[in-house]
Parts: sequence; structure tokens; C-alpha cells
Amino acid sequence: MAENERSFYFALCVATKGEQTRDAILEGALKLASRVGLEGLSIGMLAEELALSKSGLFAHFGSKETLQLRTIEYAAERFAELIVKPALAAPRGEPRVRALFEATLRWPVLVPQPGGCLFVSAAVEFDDRPGPVRNRLRDYWRQRVSFFAGAVRKATEAGHFRRDVDPDQFSFEVDGILIAYHFASRLLDDPKADERAHRAFDALVSAARPSRR
Amino acid sequence: MAENERSFYFALCVATKGEQTRDAILEGALKLASRVGLEGLSIGMLAEELALSKSGLFAHFGSKETLQLRTIEYAAERFAELIVKPALAAPRGEPRVRALFEATLRWPVLVPQPGGCLFVSAAVEFDDRPGPVRNRLRDYWRQRVSFFAGAVRKATEAGHFRRDVDPDQFSFEVDGILIAYHFASRLLDDPKADERAHRAFDALVSAARPSRR
Repeated sequence: MAENERSFYFALCVATKGEQTRDAILEGALKLASRVGLEGLSIGMLAEELALSKSGLFAHFGSKETLQLRTIEYAAERFAELIVKPALAAPRGEPRVRALFEATLRWPVLVPQPGGCLFVSAAVEFDDRPGPVRNRLRDYWRQRVSFFAGAVRKATEAGHFRRDVDPDQFSFEVDGILIAYHFASRLLDDPKADERAHRAFDALVSAARPSRR
Repeated sequence: MAENERSFYFALCVATKGEQTRDAILEGALKLASRVGLEGLSIGMLAEELALSKSGLFAHFGSKETLQLRTIEYAAERFAELIVKPALAAPRGEPRVRALFEATLRWPVLVPQPGGCLFVSAAVEFDDRPGPVRNRLRDYWRQRVSFFAGAVRKATEAGHFRRDVDPDQFSFEVDGILIAYHFASRLLDDPKADERAHRAFDALVSAARPSRR
């Protein structure tokens, strides 16, 4: 490892600069995994992409699986920061449910994923491969869905949604809209994908509101 | 190529027996692609899986891309035969829309795809790879969605659904339910995935029915 490489990896362990370096590496890993798949992501390929030495990256991550896990965790951190945190600034209730939906729809753009949402592609790759990567993905996905359900529950508490709205069912259906949007925009080249996703979400929200009497 | 191999490939060109052989090869390709991905599917791997000679399979398909295209076409044929055809036996209108939904939900079981629906996984792999495989997938997916929309249109003509129901929007939302079911059952291990998919579909159908006055 060259001297500048050494200090580069040393920086990984030091406060702010180290975090920046770590983030730059993981941001590269996320972009790359979005394009070639989380399974396609290798330490060698990432080293080439970032013009770093393979041995240096290997010394840091230790294994391809660790790189995969760190990439998922990084994506989840960014999701929390750029999707969840701003949505929490919206007023509790229907506005926050909507803010969460809107931000999630734009997530692969807000945190650049040129091959589309990493979680969708990684889920397809790992759903039938038991192990730590699948577990991490599943736990993260469950957490995201249940966070959304929590926002729906608060919308009911605020009187924006009816008492008989099932938050988990609502969250399942929103997930469907988000993934249908993913496929319609990315594979079907459907110019109406965004409009369709919004119409579906609006219908769901309308149906959840207390009926006017 | 051994003599029995030669007659095996010769059989591919002859009526019924040839079709059976072709179907057996493509059924194996579909199963394998469902597990390892359409991009992971190679002539060598398929030859090993089916205990056939690689050179024989290569002589037949010519290239990995042709194998991928034939596998998609075979899946589409089976979908037409085992999902669409039986659904057409259901009475036109809401019953047929429901029959199509139910059969599509069971599609990866009706035509064994141990790694889940090939179209979902292949879409994720190929949505950002321009070329004949992506085009074939996109065309097939559009065709399926627009066939579903046609059934919805007929449900309106039959008076089962309201005049202002948008068939393409309905079809987009059903697609969302089907894909959400795919992820909830395969990655999230959600024991309620099937129940949730049905509740979502029922709500969509209820909302489409003419209001009683």
C-alpha cells in the first residue's frame, strides 16, 4: 500500500474526514451496486471505479459480504437522512404520510442510484439466498414499511384517517404503488408512470379519510 | 455430438416430440433463470443442469442472448396458456378480472419458478440494458398490462364497473399489488402477504363498482 493510500485508510478511523472518506467509498459502492447488482458488486470492481488500490479496500472491508452489508447500511442511513428526516418536518397526519410517499418516490434520484432503487434490485437477488445480506435487507425493508405504518397510525390519531384504516395494509399498498412506479418508469418507459403513482396514492388517501356526513 | 444427442436436436425440428423436447429444455431454462437470474443463465450451466452436451445446446441456441430471448418467449407462452386461457373461461366482467388476478398471483407456482416470477427478476436485471432482451421483456410486460386493462374495459361495458374507471390506471394498481405480494412473501416472509394482496384487490374492485343509489 502506498503512503497516501495508507493515510487514506487511516483516515477511515478518524472523526469527520474519516467519515467523509467512508461516505465517498460507500456512495461509490451504492451507485455501482445500483448498476451491476449487489451480488455483482466486488471489491476489485469498486477499487477500479474509485481509482483506489484493491488491497487497500480489501484491508478495510475484509470480504465481499461485508462490503455488501456496509452498502445496505449506508443506503439505509441515507434514506433516514434524506427521506425520513425531512418528512418528519411535515405536520403529523396526512401531510407527513404524503411527504414520506413523495420523498420515497424520488429516493433513487435524491441519493443517486443510476440503476434504480438498490433495495428493489437487491431484494430480487437475495430473497432466495439465506444469510446475513438477506437478513439485513429484510430487516431494513420491514423497518421502512413499519415506519410508514406508524405515520398512518398517527394520521388516524389526528383524525385525518378513519379509525378502521389498517396501517400495515395501507403501507403494503403504498409499497405496491412505489414498486409499480419503479417498473413502469424503468422498464415500460411509461411517460405516465409518475401521474399513475400519484393517482393511485390519492385514491388510497381519499378512501382512508373519514366520510363527510 | 453423440448419435443420441444428434437425434435429440433433430427432434427439436419435428412436430410433437420435438416440441416436447424443446419445452423440456426451455422449462429447465425458466426454472434455472428464476434462480440465478436471466443474466446468470448460460448455455453451459443449462447443459449441466439438464445433463445435455454444451455443444449440442450451443448448436441449437447459438448464443446466450438467443437462449435468454427463447426463455422469455417460453415464459410468455406458458403465461398465455396457464393464466390467460383459463381466465377467459370465466364470465366476462368482474369475474374475469378477478380470475386473471388470482391466476397471476399463483403464476410462479403454476409454472414452477423456484426463485419467483422470472419477469420481475429479469426486469430488474435488464431495465437499464438496452437491447433485444430488454425490448422483449418490455413488450411482453406492456402486452400483459394492456390485456388486463382490456378485461377491465369489458367489466365497464358489462356494467360491473363504473364508466369513469380508467382501465390502464386499474391495471397499474393491480400490477403494484402483485409485485408488493412478490416482495412481501419472498423477502419479508410476511405470513399475511396473500391476505394483504386480496384485501388490496378487493378494495380496488369495490371502489370500481357503480355506487348503489
